[in-house]
Amino acid sequence: MFEQVSIIGCGLIGSSIFRALKKNGSVKKVITFDNDKSVSEIIKKENLSDKIVSTPEEAVRNADLVLISTPQSSFEPVLDSVKKYLKSGSILTDTNSVKKGLDVIIKKMNLKNISWIPSHPVAGTEQSGPRAGFSDLFRDRWTILTPDSKTKHSDVKKISVFWESMGSKVKIMSVGEHDKILSLSSHLPHVIAYNIVKTAMSNDEKTKKNLIKYSAGGLRDFTRIVVSNPTMWKDIFINNSDLIIDGINKFSKNLEEFKKAIAEKDSKKLLEIFENSKEFREAIVEAGQDTDKPNFGRK
Amino acid sequence: MFEQVSIIGCGLIGSSIFRALKKNGSVKKVITFDNDKSVSEIIKKENLSDKIVSTPEEAVRNADLVLISTPQSSFEPVLDSVKKYLKSGSILTDTNSVKKGLDVIIKKMNLKNISWIPSHPVAGTEQSGPRAGFSDLFRDRWTILTPDSKTKHSDVKKISVFWESMGSKVKIMSVGEHDKILSLSSHLPHVIAYNIVKTAMSNDEKTKKNLIKYSAGGLRDFTRIVVSNPTMWKDIFINNSDLIIDGINKFSKNLEEFKKAIAEKDSKKLLEIFENSKEFREAIVEAGQDTDKPNFGRK
Repeated sequence: MFEQVSIIGCGLIGSSIFRALKKNGSVKKVITFDNDKSVSEIIKKENLSDKIVSTPEEAVRNADLVLISTPQSSFEPVLDSVKKYLKSGSILTDTNSVKKGLDVIIKKMNLKNISWIPSHPVAGTEQSGPRAGFSDLFRDRWTILTPDSKTKHSDVKKISVFWESMGSKVKIMSVGEHDKILSLSSHLPHVIAYNIVKTAMSNDEKTKKNLIKYSAGGLRDFTRIVVSNPTMWKDIFINNSDLIIDGINKFSKNLEEFKKAIAEKDSKKLLEIFENSKEFREAIVEAGQDTDKPNFGRK
Repeated sequence: MFEQVSIIGCGLIGSSIFRALKKNGSVKKVITFDNDKSVSEIIKKENLSDKIVSTPEEAVRNADLVLISTPQSSFEPVLDSVKKYLKSGSILTDTNSVKKGLDVIIKKMNLKNISWIPSHPVAGTEQSGPRAGFSDLFRDRWTILTPDSKTKHSDVKKISVFWESMGSKVKIMSVGEHDKILSLSSHLPHVIAYNIVKTAMSNDEKTKKNLIKYSAGGLRDFTRIVVSNPTMWKDIFINNSDLIIDGINKFSKNLEEFKKAIAEKDSKKLLEIFENSKEFREAIVEAGQDTDKPNFGRK
Protein backbone atom coordinates (compact mmCIF):
# COMPACT_ATOMS: atom_id res chain seq x y z
CA MET A 1 0.00 0.00 0.00
CA PHE A 2 1.84 3.12 1.22
CA GLU A 3 5.48 3.16 2.25
CA GLN A 4 5.08 6.15 4.55
CA VAL A 5 1.92 7.70 5.99
CA SER A 6 2.07 10.96 7.91
CA ILE A 7 -0.68 11.89 10.31
CA ILE A 8 -1.08 15.48 11.44
CA GLY A 9 -3.44 15.78 14.39
CA CYS A 10 -3.51 12.86 16.80
CA GLY A 11 -6.84 13.07 18.60
CA LEU A 12 -9.58 10.44 18.67
CA ILE A 13 -9.58 9.95 14.88
CA GLY A 14 -5.87 10.41 14.12
CA SER A 15 -4.79 8.15 16.95
CA SER A 16 -7.33 5.49 16.00
CA ILE A 17 -5.84 5.50 12.50
CA PHE A 18 -2.28 4.93 13.62
CA ARG A 19 -3.38 2.33 16.14
CA ALA A 20 -5.22 0.49 13.36
CA LEU A 21 -2.26 0.78 10.96
CA LYS A 22 0.15 -0.49 13.59
CA LYS A 23 -2.13 -3.45 14.18
CA ASN A 24 -2.68 -4.41 10.56
CA GLY A 25 0.92 -3.77 9.49
CA SER A 26 -0.10 -2.53 6.06
CA VAL A 27 2.06 0.61 6.16
CA LYS A 28 5.85 0.50 6.50
CA LYS A 29 6.27 3.73 8.43
CA VAL A 30 3.81 5.97 10.27
CA ILE A 31 4.97 9.47 11.19
CA THR A 32 2.90 11.58 13.56
CA PHE A 33 2.70 15.23 14.47
CA ASP A 34 0.47 17.09 16.91
CA ASN A 35 0.88 20.74 17.88
CA ASP A 36 0.04 19.87 21.48
CA LYS A 37 3.24 18.52 23.07
CA SER A 38 1.36 16.60 25.77
CA VAL A 39 -0.33 14.62 22.97
CA SER A 40 3.07 13.64 21.51
CA GLU A 41 4.21 12.63 25.01
CA ILE A 42 1.31 10.19 25.29
CA ILE A 43 2.02 8.72 21.86
CA LYS A 44 5.68 8.31 22.74
CA LYS A 45 4.93 6.72 26.10
CA GLU A 46 2.52 4.23 24.55
CA ASN A 47 4.86 3.59 21.61
CA LEU A 48 2.13 4.19 19.04
CA SER A 49 4.10 5.89 16.28
CA ASP A 50 7.19 4.92 14.28
CA LYS A 51 8.43 8.49 14.44
CA ILE A 52 7.14 11.54 16.28
CA VAL A 53 8.25 14.79 14.69
CA SER A 54 8.12 18.30 16.07
CA THR A 55 6.99 20.25 13.01
CA PRO A 56 4.36 19.52 10.36
CA GLU A 57 6.96 20.22 7.65
CA GLU A 58 9.13 17.38 8.94
CA ALA A 59 6.10 15.11 9.01
CA VAL A 60 5.20 15.39 5.34
CA ARG A 61 8.61 14.99 3.68
CA ASN A 62 8.73 11.64 1.85
CA ALA A 63 5.17 10.75 2.84
CA ASP A 64 3.13 8.90 0.20
CA LEU A 65 0.00 9.78 2.09
CA VAL A 66 -0.50 12.87 4.23
CA LEU A 67 -3.58 12.76 6.44
CA ILE A 68 -4.70 15.93 8.25
CA SER A 69 -6.99 15.01 11.12
CA THR A 70 -7.27 18.32 12.94
CA PRO A 71 -10.47 20.31 13.51
CA GLN A 72 -11.47 22.02 10.26
CA SER A 73 -10.35 25.52 11.35
CA SER A 74 -6.75 24.23 11.50
CA PHE A 75 -6.85 22.67 8.03
CA GLU A 76 -5.80 25.79 6.14
CA PRO A 77 -2.93 26.91 8.43
CA VAL A 78 -1.58 23.35 8.62
CA LEU A 79 -1.70 22.92 4.86
CA ASP A 80 -0.14 26.32 4.35
CA SER A 81 2.83 25.34 6.50
CA VAL A 82 3.45 22.01 4.75
CA LYS A 83 2.52 22.68 1.12
CA LYS A 84 6.08 23.34 -0.01
CA TYR A 85 7.28 20.05 1.48
CA LEU A 86 4.68 17.66 0.08
CA LYS A 87 6.21 14.88 -2.02
CA SER A 88 5.40 15.03 -5.73
CA GLY A 89 2.86 12.35 -6.63
CA SER A 90 1.67 11.91 -3.05
CA ILE A 91 -1.94 11.79 -1.84
CA LEU A 92 -3.39 14.34 0.57
CA THR A 93 -6.50 13.59 2.63
CA ASP A 94 -8.36 14.73 5.74
CA THR A 95 -11.11 13.45 8.07
CA ASN A 96 -13.48 16.43 8.29
CA SER A 97 -17.26 16.14 8.70
CA VAL A 98 -17.93 19.02 6.32
CA LYS A 99 -16.42 18.97 2.84
CA LYS A 100 -17.64 22.32 1.56
CA GLY A 101 -14.89 24.92 1.63
CA LEU A 102 -11.96 22.49 1.63
CA ASP A 103 -11.71 22.45 -2.17
CA VAL A 104 -11.51 26.26 -2.17
CA ILE A 105 -8.58 26.15 0.26
CA ILE A 106 -6.86 23.48 -1.83
CA LYS A 107 -7.25 25.56 -5.01
CA LYS A 108 -5.77 28.58 -3.27
CA MET A 109 -2.70 26.56 -2.25
CA ASN A 110 -1.92 25.81 -5.89
CA LEU A 111 -0.48 22.36 -5.15
CA LYS A 112 1.58 20.72 -7.92
CA ASN A 113 1.17 17.02 -8.65
CA ILE A 114 -0.65 16.24 -5.39
CA SER A 115 -3.80 14.09 -5.36
CA TRP A 116 -6.32 15.71 -3.01
CA ILE A 117 -8.90 13.10 -1.98
CA PRO A 118 -11.12 14.17 0.94
CA SER A 119 -12.08 11.39 3.40
CA HIS A 120 -14.69 11.28 6.11
CA PRO A 121 -14.75 8.21 8.35
CA VAL A 122 -18.27 8.24 9.83
CA ALA A 123 -17.14 6.82 13.14
CA GLY A 124 -16.28 8.17 16.53
CA THR A 125 -17.20 8.35 20.16
CA GLU A 126 -18.02 11.32 22.37
CA GLN A 127 -14.47 11.22 23.76
CA SER A 128 -11.47 13.19 22.49
CA GLY A 129 -7.71 13.00 22.48
CA PRO A 130 -5.11 10.31 21.76
CA ARG A 131 -6.14 8.14 24.71
CA ALA A 132 -9.70 7.89 23.36
CA GLY A 133 -8.58 6.29 20.10
CA PHE A 134 -8.74 2.55 19.45
CA SER A 135 -7.79 0.36 16.51
CA ASP A 136 -11.30 -0.98 15.85
CA LEU A 137 -13.00 2.43 15.60
CA PHE A 138 -13.50 2.13 11.84
CA ARG A 139 -14.48 -1.53 11.72
CA ASP A 140 -17.78 -1.96 9.81
CA ARG A 141 -18.22 1.83 9.66
CA TRP A 142 -18.43 3.83 6.44
CA THR A 143 -15.75 6.14 5.11
CA ILE A 144 -17.01 8.60 2.52
CA LEU A 145 -14.59 9.91 -0.12
CA THR A 146 -15.44 13.04 -2.13
CA PRO A 147 -12.79 13.27 -4.90
CA ASP A 148 -13.55 15.49 -7.88
CA SER A 149 -13.94 13.95 -11.33
CA LYS A 150 -10.36 14.78 -12.37
CA THR A 151 -8.76 12.71 -9.61
CA LYS A 152 -6.64 9.75 -10.75
CA HIS A 153 -8.61 6.53 -10.36
CA SER A 154 -5.55 4.65 -9.16
CA ASP A 155 -5.14 7.13 -6.29
CA VAL A 156 -8.80 6.80 -5.29
CA LYS A 157 -8.26 3.05 -5.31
CA LYS A 158 -5.16 3.39 -3.10
CA ILE A 159 -6.91 5.45 -0.43
CA SER A 160 -9.93 3.15 -0.56
CA VAL A 161 -7.68 0.17 0.17
CA PHE A 162 -6.11 2.20 2.99
CA TRP A 163 -9.47 2.70 4.76
CA GLU A 164 -10.54 -0.86 4.00
CA SER A 165 -7.37 -2.16 5.65
CA MET A 166 -8.75 -0.69 8.89
CA GLY A 167 -12.07 -2.51 8.47
CA SER A 168 -13.97 0.41 6.98
CA LYS A 169 -16.41 0.26 4.06
CA VAL A 170 -15.81 2.95 1.44
CA LYS A 171 -18.39 5.02 -0.42
CA ILE A 172 -17.67 7.71 -3.02
CA MET A 173 -20.00 10.67 -3.40
CA SER A 174 -20.04 14.37 -4.26
CA VAL A 175 -19.24 17.11 -1.74
CA GLY A 176 -22.81 18.40 -1.96
CA GLU A 177 -24.38 15.01 -1.34
CA HIS A 178 -22.00 14.30 1.55
CA ASP A 179 -22.70 17.59 3.30
CA LYS A 180 -26.46 17.23 2.87
CA ILE A 181 -26.58 13.71 4.30
CA LEU A 182 -24.29 14.54 7.21
CA SER A 183 -26.27 17.70 8.01
CA LEU A 184 -29.22 15.42 8.83
CA SER A 185 -27.58 12.22 10.08
CA SER A 186 -25.03 13.86 12.33
CA HIS A 187 -25.03 17.68 12.53
CA LEU A 188 -28.74 18.21 13.22
CA PRO A 189 -28.80 15.47 15.91
CA HIS A 190 -25.90 17.25 17.61
CA VAL A 191 -27.75 20.59 17.51
CA ILE A 192 -30.82 18.91 18.99
CA ALA A 193 -28.80 17.18 21.70
CA TYR A 194 -27.16 20.44 22.76
CA ASN A 195 -30.54 22.14 22.64
CA ILE A 196 -32.38 19.65 24.80
CA VAL A 197 -29.62 19.90 27.39
CA LYS A 198 -29.79 23.71 27.10
CA THR A 199 -33.55 23.47 27.72
CA ALA A 200 -33.07 21.21 30.73
CA MET A 201 -30.47 23.62 32.12
CA SER A 202 -32.64 26.70 31.72
CA ASN A 203 -34.55 25.71 34.86
CA ASP A 204 -34.01 26.61 38.50
CA GLU A 205 -31.32 24.75 40.47
CA LYS A 206 -33.76 22.38 42.17
CA THR A 207 -35.42 21.32 38.90
CA LYS A 208 -32.02 20.93 37.23
CA LYS A 209 -30.89 18.57 39.99
CA ASN A 210 -34.09 16.58 39.59
CA LEU A 211 -33.65 16.34 35.82
CA ILE A 212 -30.18 14.86 36.35
CA LYS A 213 -31.52 12.47 39.00
CA TYR A 214 -34.36 11.16 36.83
CA SER A 215 -32.57 11.35 33.48
CA ALA A 216 -32.79 7.58 32.98
CA GLY A 217 -36.36 8.20 31.77
CA GLY A 218 -35.04 9.25 28.36
CA LEU A 219 -33.01 12.45 28.70
CA ARG A 220 -29.71 10.65 29.27
CA ASP A 221 -29.65 9.27 25.69
CA PHE A 222 -29.44 12.85 24.39
CA THR A 223 -26.56 13.92 26.61
CA ARG A 224 -23.85 11.54 25.40
CA ILE A 225 -22.80 13.44 22.29
CA VAL A 226 -22.73 16.87 23.95
CA VAL A 227 -19.28 16.16 25.40
CA SER A 228 -17.74 15.72 21.94
CA ASN A 229 -14.75 17.88 20.95
CA PRO A 230 -15.98 21.52 21.20
CA THR A 231 -13.59 23.02 18.61
CA MET A 232 -14.50 20.34 16.10
CA TRP A 233 -18.23 20.92 16.56
CA LYS A 234 -17.94 24.69 16.51
CA ASP A 235 -16.16 24.30 13.14
CA ILE A 236 -18.81 21.91 11.82
CA PHE A 237 -21.71 24.19 12.75
CA ILE A 238 -19.95 27.16 11.13
CA ASN A 239 -18.82 25.36 7.97
CA ASN A 240 -22.10 23.59 7.23
CA SER A 241 -24.35 26.33 8.61
CA ASP A 242 -26.69 26.70 5.61
CA LEU A 243 -27.62 23.02 5.42
CA ILE A 244 -27.85 22.72 9.22
CA ILE A 245 -30.23 25.68 9.30
CA ASP A 246 -32.35 24.01 6.59
CA GLY A 247 -32.44 20.94 8.82
CA ILE A 248 -33.43 22.98 11.90
CA ASN A 249 -36.24 24.63 9.93
CA LYS A 250 -37.61 21.26 8.80
CA PHE A 251 -37.32 19.94 12.36
CA SER A 252 -39.20 22.98 13.74
CA LYS A 253 -41.98 22.64 11.19
CA ASN A 254 -42.45 18.97 12.12
CA LEU A 255 -42.35 19.86 15.81
CA GLU A 256 -45.19 22.37 15.37
CA GLU A 257 -47.32 19.67 13.72
CA PHE A 258 -46.45 17.24 16.50
CA LYS A 259 -47.32 19.84 19.16
CA LYS A 260 -50.68 20.34 17.51
CA ALA A 261 -51.38 16.57 17.68
CA ILE A 262 -50.49 16.59 21.39
CA ALA A 263 -52.58 19.71 22.11
CA GLU A 264 -55.56 18.22 20.28
CA LYS A 265 -55.01 14.83 21.97
CA ASP A 266 -55.13 13.26 18.51
CA SER A 267 -54.54 9.56 19.29
CA LYS A 268 -54.72 8.49 15.67
CA LYS A 269 -52.12 10.98 14.50
CA LEU A 270 -49.80 10.14 17.43
CA LEU A 271 -49.97 6.40 16.81
CA GLU A 272 -49.26 7.02 13.13
CA ILE A 273 -46.07 8.96 13.99
CA PHE A 274 -44.94 6.17 16.34
CA GLU A 275 -45.57 3.44 13.78
CA ASN A 276 -43.49 5.19 11.10
CA SER A 277 -40.66 5.94 13.54
CA LYS A 278 -40.44 2.28 14.51
CA GLU A 279 -39.72 1.24 10.94
CA PHE A 280 -36.86 3.71 10.75
CA ARG A 281 -35.21 2.43 13.94
CA GLU A 282 -35.58 -1.15 12.78
CA ALA A 283 -33.88 -0.27 9.48
CA ILE A 284 -30.93 1.25 11.38
CA VAL A 285 -30.46 -1.92 13.43
CA GLU A 286 -30.94 -4.03 10.29
CA ALA A 287 -28.22 -2.02 8.52
CA GLY A 288 -25.78 -2.86 11.34
CA GLN A 289 -25.57 0.79 12.41
CA ASP A 290 -26.73 0.14 15.97
CA THR A 291 -27.10 -2.65 18.49
CA ASP A 292 -30.50 -4.24 19.08
CA LYS A 293 -29.71 -4.77 22.78
CA PRO A 294 -32.11 -2.95 25.14
CA ASN A 295 -30.77 0.40 26.40
CA PHE A 296 -27.88 0.14 23.89
CA GLY A 297 -26.61 -2.76 26.03
CA ARG A 298 -25.68 -0.32 28.83
CA LYS A 299 -24.22 -1.92 31.92
CA MET B 1 -43.83 -7.49 53.72
CA PHE B 2 -46.96 -8.44 51.75
CA GLU B 3 -48.57 -11.87 51.87
CA GLN B 4 -50.16 -11.57 48.44
CA VAL B 5 -49.37 -9.15 45.63
CA SER B 6 -51.55 -9.01 42.54
CA ILE B 7 -50.21 -7.61 39.32
CA ILE B 8 -52.58 -6.53 36.57
CA GLY B 9 -50.80 -5.91 33.28
CA CYS B 10 -47.71 -8.02 32.63
CA GLY B 11 -45.65 -6.10 30.10
CA LEU B 12 -42.08 -4.83 30.50
CA ILE B 13 -42.77 -3.23 33.90
CA GLY B 14 -45.26 -5.72 35.37
CA SER B 15 -43.20 -8.73 34.37
CA SER B 16 -40.00 -7.16 35.70
CA ILE B 17 -41.76 -6.72 39.04
CA PHE B 18 -42.82 -10.33 39.37
CA ARG B 19 -39.44 -11.54 38.18
CA ALA B 20 -37.78 -9.39 40.85
CA LEU B 21 -40.22 -10.55 43.56
CA LYS B 22 -39.71 -14.20 42.62
CA LYS B 23 -35.96 -13.67 42.87
CA ASN B 24 -35.92 -11.86 46.20
CA GLY B 25 -38.60 -14.06 47.80
CA SER B 26 -40.03 -11.18 49.81
CA VAL B 27 -43.66 -11.85 48.86
CA LYS B 28 -45.44 -15.11 49.69
CA LYS B 29 -47.73 -15.23 46.68
CA VAL B 30 -47.75 -13.32 43.40
CA ILE B 31 -50.92 -13.43 41.32
CA THR B 32 -50.90 -12.14 37.75
CA PHE B 33 -53.48 -11.12 35.22
CA ASP B 34 -53.16 -9.80 31.67
CA ASN B 35 -56.04 -9.31 29.26
CA ASP B 36 -53.89 -10.63 26.43
CA LYS B 37 -54.01 -14.43 26.62
CA SER B 38 -50.73 -14.85 24.75
CA VAL B 39 -49.04 -12.88 27.55
CA SER B 40 -50.40 -15.28 30.19
CA GLU B 41 -49.20 -18.20 28.06
CA ILE B 42 -45.64 -16.86 28.15
CA ILE B 43 -45.80 -16.34 31.91
CA LYS B 44 -47.11 -19.87 32.39
CA LYS B 45 -44.47 -21.38 30.13
CA GLU B 46 -41.66 -19.61 31.91
CA ASN B 47 -43.18 -20.34 35.34
CA LEU B 48 -42.98 -16.71 36.44
CA SER B 49 -46.17 -16.41 38.50
CA ASP B 50 -47.52 -18.32 41.49
CA LYS B 51 -51.01 -18.12 40.02
CA ILE B 52 -52.30 -16.87 36.70
CA VAL B 53 -55.94 -15.86 36.79
CA SER B 54 -58.33 -15.16 33.96
CA THR B 55 -60.19 -12.13 35.30
CA PRO B 56 -58.97 -9.00 37.11
CA GLU B 57 -61.64 -9.59 39.79
CA GLU B 58 -60.09 -12.95 40.65
CA ALA B 59 -56.70 -11.33 40.82
CA VAL B 60 -57.47 -8.78 43.50
CA ARG B 61 -59.40 -10.88 46.06
CA ASN B 62 -57.25 -11.31 49.16
CA ALA B 63 -54.41 -9.21 47.75
CA ASP B 64 -52.60 -6.97 50.25
CA LEU B 65 -51.15 -5.01 47.36
CA VAL B 66 -52.79 -4.52 43.98
CA LEU B 67 -50.49 -3.12 41.31
CA ILE B 68 -51.97 -1.96 38.02
CA SER B 69 -49.23 -1.77 35.38
CA THR B 70 -51.26 -1.24 32.24
CA PRO B 71 -51.06 1.78 29.92
CA GLN B 72 -52.83 4.72 31.56
CA SER B 73 -55.92 4.54 29.31
CA SER B 74 -56.71 1.12 30.80
CA PHE B 75 -56.38 2.27 34.42
CA GLU B 76 -59.98 3.42 34.83
CA PRO B 77 -61.73 0.42 33.20
CA VAL B 78 -59.49 -2.03 35.10
CA LEU B 79 -60.14 -0.30 38.40
CA ASP B 80 -63.85 -0.13 37.68
CA SER B 81 -63.98 -3.89 37.17
CA VAL B 82 -62.09 -4.75 40.38
CA LYS B 83 -63.19 -2.05 42.83
CA LYS B 84 -65.87 -4.17 44.50
CA TYR B 85 -63.39 -7.00 45.11
CA LEU B 86 -60.51 -5.07 46.67
CA LYS B 87 -59.65 -6.31 50.16
CA SER B 88 -60.37 -3.85 52.97
CA GLY B 89 -57.13 -2.32 54.26
CA SER B 90 -55.17 -3.18 51.12
CA ILE B 91 -52.87 -0.90 49.16
CA LEU B 92 -53.50 0.05 45.55
CA THR B 93 -50.72 1.32 43.30
CA ASP B 94 -49.81 1.79 39.64
CA THR B 95 -46.72 2.44 37.53
CA ASN B 96 -47.83 5.31 35.28
CA SER B 97 -45.53 8.06 34.00
CA VAL B 98 -48.18 10.76 34.46
CA LYS B 99 -49.88 11.15 37.81
CA LYS B 100 -52.34 13.91 36.96
CA GLY B 101 -55.84 12.57 36.46
CA LEU B 102 -55.38 9.35 38.42
CA ASP B 103 -56.55 10.93 41.69
CA VAL B 104 -59.73 12.11 39.97
CA ILE B 105 -60.46 8.56 38.80
CA ILE B 106 -59.81 7.20 42.29
CA LYS B 107 -62.17 9.75 43.87
CA LYS B 108 -64.90 8.81 41.41
CA MET B 109 -64.56 5.13 42.38
CA ASN B 110 -65.36 5.96 46.00
CA LEU B 111 -63.12 3.22 47.41
CA LYS B 112 -63.63 2.26 51.07
CA ASN B 113 -60.62 1.65 53.30
CA ILE B 114 -58.14 1.30 50.41
CA SER B 115 -54.75 3.08 50.50
CA TRP B 116 -54.12 4.58 47.07
CA ILE B 117 -50.38 5.27 46.71
CA PRO B 118 -49.27 6.06 43.15
CA SER B 119 -45.85 4.70 42.12
CA HIS B 120 -43.64 5.50 39.18
CA PRO B 121 -40.49 3.41 38.73
CA VAL B 122 -38.28 5.57 36.49
CA ALA B 123 -36.81 2.58 34.70
CA GLY B 124 -37.38 0.76 31.47
CA THR B 125 -36.04 -0.13 28.09
CA GLU B 126 -37.40 0.52 24.62
CA GLN B 127 -38.76 -3.03 24.50
CA SER B 128 -42.26 -4.14 25.48
CA GLY B 129 -44.07 -7.25 26.64
CA PRO B 130 -43.43 -9.96 29.24
CA ARG B 131 -40.32 -11.29 27.50
CA ALA B 132 -38.64 -7.86 27.74
CA GLY B 133 -38.85 -7.80 31.55
CA PHE B 134 -35.92 -8.69 33.80
CA SER B 135 -35.47 -8.84 37.55
CA ASP B 136 -32.76 -6.16 37.74
CA LEU B 137 -34.70 -3.47 35.86
CA PHE B 138 -35.25 -1.40 39.01
CA ARG B 139 -31.80 -1.85 40.55
CA ASP B 140 -30.29 1.56 41.44
CA ARG B 141 -33.17 3.32 39.66
CA TRP B 142 -35.59 5.72 41.36
CA THR B 143 -39.22 5.01 42.13
CA ILE B 144 -41.29 8.11 42.78
CA LEU B 145 -44.34 7.86 45.07
CA THR B 146 -46.99 10.59 45.04
CA PRO B 147 -49.33 9.84 47.99
CA ASP B 148 -51.58 12.64 49.22
CA SER B 149 -51.08 14.02 52.73
CA LYS B 150 -53.90 11.92 54.23
CA THR B 151 -52.28 8.59 53.32
CA LYS B 152 -51.32 6.35 56.26
CA HIS B 153 -47.57 6.64 56.90
CA SER B 154 -47.28 2.94 57.64
CA ASP B 155 -48.71 2.14 54.18
CA VAL B 156 -46.26 4.50 52.47
CA LYS B 157 -43.51 2.76 54.40
CA LYS B 158 -44.78 -0.67 53.27
CA ILE B 159 -44.79 0.22 49.59
CA SER B 160 -41.40 1.90 49.91
CA VAL B 161 -39.94 -1.32 51.33
CA PHE B 162 -41.63 -3.21 48.47
CA TRP B 163 -39.80 -1.13 45.80
CA GLU B 164 -36.57 -1.16 47.80
CA SER B 165 -36.70 -4.96 47.93
CA MET B 166 -36.26 -4.85 44.13
CA GLY B 167 -33.18 -2.62 44.40
CA SER B 168 -34.98 0.66 43.75
CA LYS B 169 -34.42 3.96 45.58
CA VAL B 170 -37.64 5.65 46.68
CA LYS B 171 -38.51 9.34 46.55
CA ILE B 172 -41.77 10.93 47.65
CA MET B 173 -43.09 14.05 45.91
CA SER B 174 -46.29 15.80 44.88
CA VAL B 175 -48.22 14.92 41.72
CA GLY B 176 -47.47 18.38 40.28
CA GLU B 177 -43.75 18.15 40.93
CA HIS B 178 -43.58 14.62 39.52
CA ASP B 179 -45.39 15.52 36.30
CA LYS B 180 -43.29 18.65 35.78
CA ILE B 181 -39.97 16.81 36.20
CA LEU B 182 -41.01 13.89 34.03
CA SER B 183 -42.32 16.23 31.32
CA LEU B 184 -38.72 17.42 30.87
CA SER B 185 -36.63 14.37 31.80
CA SER B 186 -38.65 11.83 29.87
CA HIS B 187 -41.68 13.08 27.90
CA LEU B 188 -39.99 15.95 26.04
CA PRO B 189 -36.99 13.75 25.04
CA HIS B 190 -39.45 11.23 23.61
CA VAL B 191 -41.21 13.97 21.60
CA ILE B 192 -37.84 15.16 20.29
CA ALA B 193 -36.73 11.63 19.40
CA TYR B 194 -39.93 10.96 17.44
CA ASN B 195 -39.58 14.36 15.80
CA ILE B 196 -36.01 13.95 14.64
CA VAL B 197 -36.91 10.58 13.14
CA LYS B 198 -39.98 12.22 11.54
CA THR B 199 -37.68 14.87 10.08
CA ALA B 200 -35.25 12.26 8.76
CA MET B 201 -38.14 10.36 7.19
CA SER B 202 -39.64 13.39 5.47
CA ASN B 203 -36.95 13.12 2.77
CA ASP B 204 -36.96 11.29 -0.57
CA GLU B 205 -36.27 7.53 -0.56
CA LYS B 206 -32.61 7.87 -1.56
CA THR B 207 -31.83 10.36 1.20
CA LYS B 208 -33.74 8.26 3.75
CA LYS B 209 -31.64 5.21 2.85
CA ASN B 210 -28.48 7.28 3.24
CA LEU B 211 -29.57 8.62 6.64
CA ILE B 212 -30.02 5.04 7.85
CA LYS B 213 -26.67 4.03 6.38
CA TYR B 214 -24.73 6.87 8.01
CA SER B 215 -26.76 7.07 11.23
CA ALA B 216 -23.72 6.16 13.35
CA GLY B 217 -22.72 9.82 13.07
CA GLY B 218 -25.22 10.75 15.80
CA LEU B 219 -28.76 10.07 14.58
CA ARG B 220 -28.87 6.49 15.88
CA ASP B 221 -28.79 7.65 19.54
CA PHE B 222 -32.16 9.35 18.99
CA THR B 223 -33.88 6.36 17.45
CA ARG B 224 -33.71 3.89 20.35
CA ILE B 225 -36.66 5.18 22.34
CA VAL B 226 -39.01 5.55 19.36
CA VAL B 227 -39.81 1.83 19.45
CA SER B 228 -41.22 2.07 22.99
CA ASN B 229 -44.78 0.88 23.63
CA PRO B 230 -47.02 3.05 21.37
CA THR B 231 -50.19 2.87 23.51
CA MET B 232 -48.26 3.83 26.62
CA TRP B 233 -46.66 6.83 24.91
CA LYS B 234 -49.90 7.96 23.26
CA ASP B 235 -51.45 7.97 26.76
CA ILE B 236 -48.50 9.90 28.25
CA PHE B 237 -48.60 12.61 25.57
CA ILE B 238 -52.35 13.00 26.03
CA ASN B 239 -52.37 12.92 29.84
CA ASN B 240 -49.46 15.31 30.36
CA SER B 241 -50.12 17.45 27.30
CA ASP B 242 -50.06 20.88 28.98
CA LEU B 243 -46.64 20.42 30.60
CA ILE B 244 -45.21 18.72 27.51
CA ILE B 245 -46.36 21.65 25.37
CA ASP B 246 -44.68 24.05 27.83
CA GLY B 247 -41.51 21.99 27.38
CA ILE B 248 -41.78 22.06 23.57
CA ASN B 249 -42.22 25.84 23.65
CA LYS B 250 -39.10 26.29 25.80
CA PHE B 251 -37.19 23.91 23.52
CA SER B 252 -38.29 25.84 20.42
CA LYS B 253 -37.30 29.18 21.93
CA ASN B 254 -33.83 27.82 22.74
CA LEU B 255 -33.55 26.32 19.26
CA GLU B 256 -34.24 29.70 17.65
CA GLU B 257 -31.41 31.25 19.71
CA PHE B 258 -29.14 28.38 18.77
CA LYS B 259 -30.03 28.74 15.07
CA LYS B 260 -29.15 32.43 15.28
CA ALA B 261 -25.70 31.58 16.71
CA ILE B 262 -25.13 29.12 13.84
CA ALA B 263 -26.38 31.57 11.19
CA GLU B 264 -24.15 34.32 12.60
CA LYS B 265 -21.21 31.88 12.92
CA ASP B 266 -20.86 33.05 16.51
CA SER B 267 -17.95 30.88 17.76
CA LYS B 268 -17.99 32.35 21.25
CA LYS B 269 -21.69 31.68 21.78
CA LEU B 270 -21.40 28.13 20.38
CA LEU B 271 -18.45 27.24 22.61
CA GLU B 272 -20.36 28.62 25.60
CA ILE B 273 -23.33 26.33 24.85
CA PHE B 274 -20.99 23.32 24.53
CA GLU B 275 -19.20 24.07 27.78
CA ASN B 276 -22.44 24.27 29.77
CA SER B 277 -23.82 21.10 28.17
CA LYS B 278 -20.71 19.17 29.13
CA GLU B 279 -21.24 19.89 32.84
CA PHE B 280 -24.77 18.55 32.63
CA ARG B 281 -23.70 15.27 31.02
CA GLU B 282 -20.93 14.84 33.58
CA ALA B 283 -23.44 15.33 36.39
CA ILE B 284 -25.67 12.59 34.92
CA VAL B 285 -22.78 10.12 34.83
CA GLU B 286 -21.70 11.24 38.31
CA ALA B 287 -25.23 10.57 39.62
CA GLY B 288 -25.02 6.99 38.34
CA GLN B 289 -27.77 7.61 35.79
CA ASP B 290 -25.65 6.65 32.78
CA THR B 291 -22.50 4.76 31.88
CA ASP B 292 -19.29 6.67 31.18
CA LYS B 293 -18.22 4.10 28.58
CA PRO B 294 -17.79 5.57 25.07
CA ASN B 295 -20.83 5.07 22.80
CA PHE B 296 -22.83 3.83 25.84
CA GLY B 297 -20.54 0.78 25.76
CA ARG B 298 -22.20 -0.43 22.55
CA LYS B 299 -20.76 -3.63 21.10
